[in-house]
Amino acid sequence: MKNEVLVFGHKNPDTDSICSSIIHAMLDKKNGWETKAVRLGKINKETQYVLDYLGIEPPELIEKVEEGQEVILVDHNEFNQSIEGIEQAKIIGVTDHHKIANFETSEPLYYIAKPYGCTATILFEEYKQWGHTIDKKEAVLMASAIISDTLLLKSPTTTEHDKKALEELVKIAEIDVNEYGLEMLKAGTNLDEFSVEELINLDAKKFEKGDISFVIAQVNTISIEDVLKREKEIKEVISKTIKEKGLSLFVFAITDILNSNSEIIALGEKVEVIRAAFGKALENDKAFLEGVVSRKKQLLPDIDKNM
Amino acid sequence: MKNEVLVFGHKNPDTDSICSSIIHAMLDKKNGWETKAVRLGKINKETQYVLDYLGIEPPELIEKVEEGQEVILVDHNEFNQSIEGIEQAKIIGVTDHHKIANFETSEPLYYIAKPYGCTATILFEEYKQWGHTIDKKEAVLMASAIISDTLLLKSPTTTEHDKKALEELVKIAEIDVNEYGLEMLKAGTNLDEFSVEELINLDAKKFEKGDISFVIAQVNTISIEDVLKREKEIKEVISKTIKEKGLSLFVFAITDILNSNSEIIALGEKVEVIRAAFGKALENDKAFLEGVVSRKKQLLPDIDKNM
Repeated sequence: MKNEVLVFGHKNPDTDSICSSIIHAMLDKKNGWETKAVRLGKINKETQYVLDYLGIEPPELIEKVEEGQEVILVDHNEFNQSIEGIEQAKIIGVTDHHKIANFETSEPLYYIAKPYGCTATILFEEYKQWGHTIDKKEAVLMASAIISDTLLLKSPTTTEHDKKALEELVKIAEIDVNEYGLEMLKAGTNLDEFSVEELINLDAKKFEKGDISFVIAQVNTISIEDVLKREKEIKEVISKTIKEKGLSLFVFAITDILNSNSEIIALGEKVEVIRAAFGKALENDKAFLEGVVSRKKQLLPDIDKNM
Repeated sequence: MKNEVLVFGHKNPDTDSICSSIIHAMLDKKNGWETKAVRLGKINKETQYVLDYLGIEPPELIEKVEEGQEVILVDHNEFNQSIEGIEQAKIIGVTDHHKIANFETSEPLYYIAKPYGCTATILFEEYKQWGHTIDKKEAVLMASAIISDTLLLKSPTTTEHDKKALEELVKIAEIDVNEYGLEMLKAGTNLDEFSVEELINLDAKKFEKGDISFVIAQVNTISIEDVLKREKEIKEVISKTIKEKGLSLFVFAITDILNSNSEIIALGEKVEVIRAAFGKALENDKAFLEGVVSRKKQLLPDIDKNM
């Protein structure tokens, strides 16, 4: 295990984390380096749709790394979103599109970050720069990641680079971007069979600021109302999580991917941050945020600033 | 000022920090972005040799940045090696070849790091990737930075990428690499006119590990003996600095660039780290480290590990 360089995305992997790990390992192979894509958690339903479409197996699940293990991180850099043991691993590369925080290395490394909507867009540009052609399977993987992270280019995180990449990729992938994209996104919104515990952890990211820890979790849906049927239970489980993990704030964003809005449920001693961040008071622990779909660009910066 | 993106290297700028700032701004201009190279400290004699050779003025000296100032960092990322106010600046890009530590942003950014011997080598590859030709002046600036950081390719930090870049650059620059390189390096070794205070701060970098701060300073010379004529005074000033800045360790490396060895003077409550790091006890606060010329690759990792 120790001789193999492992490539992985963040915990609670989303479609970008899974697809970009696979793509990174494919790109490495083309460049003569042996790396292996792995994953840090369960494949979500949206990603499963992509894997089923291509008829490929998910990367192997791993839970921790040994000291000195060589690793490449994609789609994240913060240690608290990464694998157990990351502090003692040897990070030789990062490809990411997030802010940099809670990250450090003891040696120089390769680090490619660009402020794009999706990691796969950066990898798309790497393919170009290295002069590699992109085959159909690679195009489906990269296009799916971009569709997922940008919600079909509707998220404010979307850049011209993402648009250009997706435009070229869907041609190679031979997919109708709206048809394939909506099917894929909808596949991820069937939340009924998840327990409330699973629901609030499906895509939960923990952030740290000074001594304070907070979580912003997000689910995509085609009916906010549908998710709110379990509102009471959701709040109970969030309160329990706050207590157990010593969190100052837990924000659960229920995002309507068809209309590009979010309803948030916020609990914790720091809930007043929500009013400062969005100019809107919580009513019954909830607030409807019009036009808000992006954790990275719309939820996190304003919450972080007011923490 | 606020509307202009500033590009700068670390405090106590060396030739790579100055030349790579100038080159970065030149590359940005070719790509249609207006940025301005500035510097955080005095031009050293080695760098002055390069500027005189080209007949160009040094970048403007600045001492701090206002909140929200857009900046691009080259040749460093650690905030304690950067400008006053960096925590409140908006970092939009980094091009660097060091480990990442004491660094964070509140927004996604461009970050290009590669584990090469010199920042200018990364910029050389950027020129290639963007398809820009390199003119004679640009070639002299990049070649000088590579010669400086790799001590004419003799430092263990040197990679194949640095060698390849330098080989191509000296042709465009129309310089004899050994003749020009030695003259340039020697220009930086005339230390007589510096006070001891200046000497230990010429190329001093501060590092932090948990609550501990330590400094590794370095001077290049063609005669270690010559520098040690002021040994007593050097130790007094180091002791004073340790007290004033609350340091746990101060390592002053006197590096013989002709024979590729270093004599170090180490003081501070954590001096036992030196024995653990290099398997050699200090004698009279000094140790001769054969083959050691690189702070980044040879001094820092072993000291850091044993801190």
